[in-house]
Amino acid sequence: MKPLILITNDDGVRAKGLRTLDEVAMEFGDVVVMAPATNSSGKSHSLTTERPLRVTEIKKEDGLEVYACDGTPVDCVKLAVEYFCPRRPDLVLSGINHGSNSSINVLYSGTMGAVIEATALGLDAIGFSLLNHNPEADFTASVPYVRHIIGQVLEKGLPTDVSLNVNIPRLAAADIKGIKICHEAKAQWLDSFEQRTDPQGRPYWWLTGKFVCNNPPQTSDEWALANGYVSVVPIHPDFTHYAAINELQHISFNGPIVNSI
Amino acid sequence: MKPLILITNDDGVRAKGLRTLDEVAMEFGDVVVMAPATNSSGKSHSLTTERPLRVTEIKKEDGLEVYACDGTPVDCVKLAVEYFCPRRPDLVLSGINHGSNSSINVLYSGTMGAVIEATALGLDAIGFSLLNHNPEADFTASVPYVRHIIGQVLEKGLPTDVSLNVNIPRLAAADIKGIKICHEAKAQWLDSFEQRTDPQGRPYWWLTGKFVCNNPPQTSDEWALANGYVSVVPIHPDFTHYAAINELQHISFNGPIVNSI
Repeated sequence: MKPLILITNDDGVRAKGLRTLDEVAMEFGDVVVMAPATNSSGKSHSLTTERPLRVTEIKKEDGLEVYACDGTPVDCVKLAVEYFCPRRPDLVLSGINHGSNSSINVLYSGTMGAVIEATALGLDAIGFSLLNHNPEADFTASVPYVRHIIGQVLEKGLPTDVSLNVNIPRLAAADIKGIKICHEAKAQWLDSFEQRTDPQGRPYWWLTGKFVCNNPPQTSDEWALANGYVSVVPIHPDFTHYAAINELQHISFNGPIVNSI
Repeated sequence: MKPLILITNDDGVRAKGLRTLDEVAMEFGDVVVMAPATNSSGKSHSLTTERPLRVTEIKKEDGLEVYACDGTPVDCVKLAVEYFCPRRPDLVLSGINHGSNSSINVLYSGTMGAVIEATALGLDAIGFSLLNHNPEADFTASVPYVRHIIGQVLEKGLPTDVSLNVNIPRLAAADIKGIKICHEAKAQWLDSFEQRTDPQGRPYWWLTGKFVCNNPPQTSDEWALANGYVSVVPIHPDFTHYAAINELQHISFNGPIVNSI
């Protein structure tokens, strides 16, 4: 039986990056797409709890089914795996995102939320992002890398609990130097909001912000991208800082209150 | 100068758990509260990108300012730090959440999204959750632990980039055995959606789900909570699976495509 590949994104079911990803995925197997009906960028790992979800069938052909869902990317993964995939997917893909999901952006990204959810469900998953926000971005140079990485993962699998965050620099094919396996660079978004005043004289605040990443090490995704490489970061659905477990013992949280109770 | 403590949550500015946390925090310093105007559970690390934010002043007294914001918990942290705190906060607190944020729940939680955002901004932060979803939950047994942990963190600080995810079992004070520093247990939410049919015969799906965590190790938060301990998990805003960076080299992502370009 052909591999089954589930695809989602956060830019919405009609995004050009999603269509590019469908086309590459169909070279490898049967494809089910379930993606948000509208733009869901910045939705992170959020779930829809206050209302039920609706689904619209957009296309149902041999080898390609496409559905729009009015929930978040994480909702899409959960619902598709449970109700819309004819069998358990062999691989979950998310993207190709219009814009970077490198470094700390993975926290905010709906595209990467979907990938992390798939991993938590025990599925192999990959998120792809191109460093170009334009809705008409040119994905031509991305395609060979997307194809190569999907092929490798289908053939060799991923380590348990690990998924991939792949970012592709905004360069012509000839200028991309190859793939680097890296860790997330440490970075911050500063000056996050811009205050304005409405015609009634009342303040309101628009999200904005400046990405600040100083001297990322050569082992990081920001360095790789700035130097012409496709970055591949292995990620997992666990926020624990393992090294700190021992450090915290020293600062005595296990203090008087433990003994006094 | 007194320490400045910023407080938020995801249950909304009027939640009982938030009021409990305010009261404890005021023993240690000046308090600014900026919390979502309405329930924002399950909002994870999401940001409000499609509309601007509004803020309502609820209380402005000596030592306690309370604001409601129509954004997510992460929006609240960013906006409060930039525009509403009279100086940079010494500590950011989130909660006390009505319900568990142990194990994989940290991914979905708006309460913990706020904590992780504060850490990314370079601030010490702690999230508190009680294993009781009831809006009228009794926080009496939680208070000594909340007080102890806030006191320790203000006195000793936290390791760089590390924040704390504190969960408190639903037990009488006398039955809580103390505090354990742990890692997140591996778990899954299965059977996530329930399909129903509307009066017009069309399907819709409600989020539901079953938390499954089999045999959590004694080093994990689920074990600690099930055995009467308050769990403290050090977390950080980095999804990288560092051990997998080497493993992935073997499966040759740096394959032909790198050499061919």
